[in-house]
Amino acid sequence: MKKTNQDYSAFVALSRDELLARLEAQLSAGRFAHVQRVEQTAIRLAQQYGADVQRAGLAGLVHDYAKQRSDAEFKQIIRQQQFDPELLTANNGIWHGVVGAYLIEHELGIHDQQVLNAVRRHTIGAVEMTALDKIIFVADFIEPGRDFPNVEQARAAANESLDAGVRFEIINTLKFLIAKQVNIYPKTIDTYNAWVAGRA
Amino acid sequence: MKKTNQDYSAFVALSRDELLARLEAQLSAGRFAHVQRVEQTAIRLAQQYGADVQRAGLAGLVHDYAKQRSDAEFKQIIRQQQFDPELLTANNGIWHGVVGAYLIEHELGIHDQQVLNAVRRHTIGAVEMTALDKIIFVADFIEPGRDFPNVEQARAAANESLDAGVRFEIINTLKFLIAKQVNIYPKTIDTYNAWVAGRA
Repeated sequence: MKKTNQDYSAFVALSRDELLARLEAQLSAGRFAHVQRVEQTAIRLAQQYGADVQRAGLAGLVHDYAKQRSDAEFKQIIRQQQFDPELLTANNGIWHGVVGAYLIEHELGIHDQQVLNAVRRHTIGAVEMTALDKIIFVADFIEPGRDFPNVEQARAAANESLDAGVRFEIINTLKFLIAKQVNIYPKTIDTYNAWVAGRA
Repeated sequence: MKKTNQDYSAFVALSRDELLARLEAQLSAGRFAHVQRVEQTAIRLAQQYGADVQRAGLAGLVHDYAKQRSDAEFKQIIRQQQFDPELLTANNGIWHGVVGAYLIEHELGIHDQQVLNAVRRHTIGAVEMTALDKIIFVADFIEPGRDFPNVEQARAAANESLDAGVRFEIINTLKFLIAKQVNIYPKTIDTYNAWVAGRA
């Protein structure tokens, strides 16, 4: 059988169809469509930038697996699994990535640390990011269903380089959070300082 | 002799004229004029909000005393006086308040902790701020010489309440830093989270 872009058998025992069924059971219809668009966008970016296409597709597909879990469940995992207690001050926007990776590993049986790290870092980035981390971070932001005022600029930045895409996204996300006057997770500023102010 | 708004003898051995001479020797003409406008604005805000008028005037007058010291001098003080080592990653914008208070105490002989704290907190604010802290933070931002796009909104916010003035300033300062793509000192985000997102 020809190995396609969406053959994830090197990283997970479940077939792609089984993964889709698991995701569909966890997510709203809109979000289920979103994760499949992120999968395709991540594959395209991995091809464009010479990164690992299978890992990119898989990480894109599962990145929001835990997005609709309850706050109570996330807090329980943070306490039981001894995550950084500072995480308790955060919210779903942070938890579904950082803690979601734990659920993806334990419920979907994905143990590849590169894939799991890309999920962990997809919302707030990190001071040090691999090409795969950048691809998932950016793919989530620019997938074809996204429609916010600067989305075409974000796509152009991602087409210029992964780093330019990361920078554009960090700046816009911070501006959005401040305009909404909502909480900013402190590690987000570490990412900003490294990637935007420090020109990583 | 009638005690005027600008009689600082309870907090400093130097007369106001002597303080002015010391400031003039340390600062450019433009900044020397700025600190006197901040002094007057702080006095006005203290009168408006029932805070300590003498401390407000004095803190307003000296808040930028150390603004034109060299980076090397600030770094030396941070190391020798065992300030938080994280401060070494900051810059003059942070140092002239947090470390500047040390110079004000040792060179001008102002030992009042309320005045010194207001100087320390005038650039990045703090999670907990006294009325005096808020007055200096806001007066520096809205003094009549300031001329930036939203300055009239900032003045209106400060006229509504000190807290509204603080919130407006934090949001605008962060937007400004991000637009300039310069480093954000992590404690600034603690202030933002407490005052804007947390609605302190």
